[in-house]
Amino acid sequence: MAREYGRRALLKHIRRAGRIPRIELADQTGISRATVTTITAELLQNGLIEEIDRPGGESDTRRGRPRVDLKIRGAARLVAGVKISNRKLSLVLLDFEGTQLATWETSIERDALPCAGMAEAITRAVAALARTAGRSIRDISGVGVGIAGIVQAAEGVVYWSPSLTERNVDFGAILSRRLERQVFIDNDANLVAVAEKTFGLGQNHSDFIVVTIESGVGMGLVIGGELYRGTRGCGAEFGHTKVHLDGALCRCGQRGCLEAYVADYALLREAMTVPGDDPTAPPAARIEALLSAARTGDATARSIVGRAGRMFALGLANLVNIFDPELIILAGEQMRFDHLYADEVIAAMRNSIVQIDKAPPEVVIHKWGDLMWARGAAAYALDNVSELALAGLDDNAA
Amino acid sequence: MAREYGRRALLKHIRRAGRIPRIELADQTGISRATVTTITAELLQNGLIEEIDRPGGESDTRRGRPRVDLKIRGAARLVAGVKISNRKLSLVLLDFEGTQLATWETSIERDALPCAGMAEAITRAVAALARTAGRSIRDISGVGVGIAGIVQAAEGVVYWSPSLTERNVDFGAILSRRLERQVFIDNDANLVAVAEKTFGLGQNHSDFIVVTIESGVGMGLVIGGELYRGTRGCGAEFGHTKVHLDGALCRCGQRGCLEAYVADYALLREAMTVPGDDPTAPPAARIEALLSAARTGDATARSIVGRAGRMFALGLANLVNIFDPELIILAGEQMRFDHLYADEVIAAMRNSIVQIDKAPPEVVIHKWGDLMWARGAAAYALDNVSELALAGLDDNAA
Repeated sequence: MAREYGRRALLKHIRRAGRIPRIELADQTGISRATVTTITAELLQNGLIEEIDRPGGESDTRRGRPRVDLKIRGAARLVAGVKISNRKLSLVLLDFEGTQLATWETSIERDALPCAGMAEAITRAVAALARTAGRSIRDISGVGVGIAGIVQAAEGVVYWSPSLTERNVDFGAILSRRLERQVFIDNDANLVAVAEKTFGLGQNHSDFIVVTIESGVGMGLVIGGELYRGTRGCGAEFGHTKVHLDGALCRCGQRGCLEAYVADYALLREAMTVPGDDPTAPPAARIEALLSAARTGDATARSIVGRAGRMFALGLANLVNIFDPELIILAGEQMRFDHLYADEVIAAMRNSIVQIDKAPPEVVIHKWGDLMWARGAAAYALDNVSELALAGLDDNAA
Repeated sequence: MAREYGRRALLKHIRRAGRIPRIELADQTGISRATVTTITAELLQNGLIEEIDRPGGESDTRRGRPRVDLKIRGAARLVAGVKISNRKLSLVLLDFEGTQLATWETSIERDALPCAGMAEAITRAVAALARTAGRSIRDISGVGVGIAGIVQAAEGVVYWSPSLTERNVDFGAILSRRLERQVFIDNDANLVAVAEKTFGLGQNHSDFIVVTIESGVGMGLVIGGELYRGTRGCGAEFGHTKVHLDGALCRCGQRGCLEAYVADYALLREAMTVPGDDPTAPPAARIEALLSAARTGDATARSIVGRAGRMFALGLANLVNIFDPELIILAGEQMRFDHLYADEVIAAMRNSIVQIDKAPPEVVIHKWGDLMWARGAAAYALDNVSELALAGLDDNAA
């Protein structure tokens, strides 16, 4: 057990450090030098890490050999990350070090597909991704998948997703059979949180919240450095927290959900009152016109957009009152959600939290594209593939 | 590090098991038998655990000596727990095994005292508690204190409490100097969660929420078996989550807080509309009359009490949507909060959470008195005193 703990701690530490000499690994983790030597020898032998000459490279005068750092061995494993979004698949291929080897984007024909059709589309896309890097699906150890909706990550079950026509499906198992690879599936906002923890703004934080804004509102929760998923795998449903008793009708069928005030469809429900709104225009164009009317001072448009902002602030304040995180990351793809990121929204949130003699949590805005979501899915696959690699090490030495 | 981990894991496991033979300790924790033998010898030598003949007591045929279990040595340490409530101090004295040796209750003259006055009152009460068991303050290793309000537990700072006249005070340090003992202070609802985890309904759950109902609404959050306090020490402020934008005025000065709909003062604000209400009567009597009128069918009283219940259900549903806990424990002292525990409130909560193909979290109601809160404070002291005892062990053997 102690050996397993040491392997996991050291591999994680080497991954975070990038390059690190053995002696610092011992100092920084508190694991004895002798144990560090034993375990790193085992990781080297199994090809999960490698030695690399120290830049500047003075010699170790006592032993007369060049000083070396340890690093993750990129070639050890390959993982793919897939983000399923509205009519689009975005993919990245990472090596074991986390280096991005290839990306791929492809459209899908409908908003929602049956599981079999979605598995087929993903399999074709993963194959295309691998080809781009001169590899095949067989070279990939694991595939991470981020999907909107309610997902039980541990079992790979999708209870509901706007991207699938079926409910309560073992989509992880279906996709794994089709790909003939290990599949790790999770709610997409959770994987954004994984990406922020692994590559992004959350790297130096142990307790933070990621709120994602697309057509819906998502949330990922990192507590004590780990993603928190809830006990049925369906926590962090920020978009369906209630901000008004018996309030506006939500797509989920309930009343007063945050999404029923801030999502696109919520704004469109009221947009027809705004002068110049064209109900026959595509939704995105109508939203754009509404936001533009609000910016140029139309009172009705301002009322619609303003309430969405105040409701969003109220929802964020509730998260702070419950969690007291160090940091809130507002992550979204599109400039057009600027009204929810506005200074007055953040200020309203700060005024609605419990006031103490300490600074409120930091709020940062991180705009990124679908490929960053896919990197989150790949990072999740990387975590799982690392665990499997460690579990596979021969335990006789222990 | 491995030794420290092993000591902590084994002491915790022995505590949970009550009595356990070494061999089962090894099997159940996954720690090798050799390590269990070494560490338990050290714990025995330092008097933290003791051996006890197995009931039924057959002999170990190989070695010809009676089989023994290990258990925590009660006499190893004494801890006190103090719950500060409205004009009352409730105290318990526990030994290191968690056995209750004495209790003490005493009144305090005002709702709120200055820190020095409160420290004095607590010191007198702890001395009286110790005397009841034939001991003195000097025999006590640590004192846990539960207080309503916003507390940074790690630093013992009270940002605000209805029981203290000052704000932003190092009350932990002040009390520790007066008592000349280690003091561990936390928000009282957090300590109810500790009590539920240690002695109560949360013993077999790793992720649960305790909601406490007194004059205010409190919350304690257990995640992964540990109390979650937030990064500024002021998370879990359930009573001040907002349930209505620009809603009813709360005592905290903000609008739309849950407490502004469910607390006593919120109900009293509306009670004068109810036939027979006497605004000059004491608050408790007016609340009693209001609840009684609601039970006997007065429409206005029903409207007031009914809305409080629906708002409470909405707040609970938000907790479930964010956390997805296994279990929610509604803990409160008084029968008169029955309207918030009512079946229709729980049903309304269940209808307001995200609906998936899995059972919603269990909701249990646990009514208890102030002494149970004090036991929570004592359990918190016990945890900390255990840590200090382990940290004090000679590490040379490692």
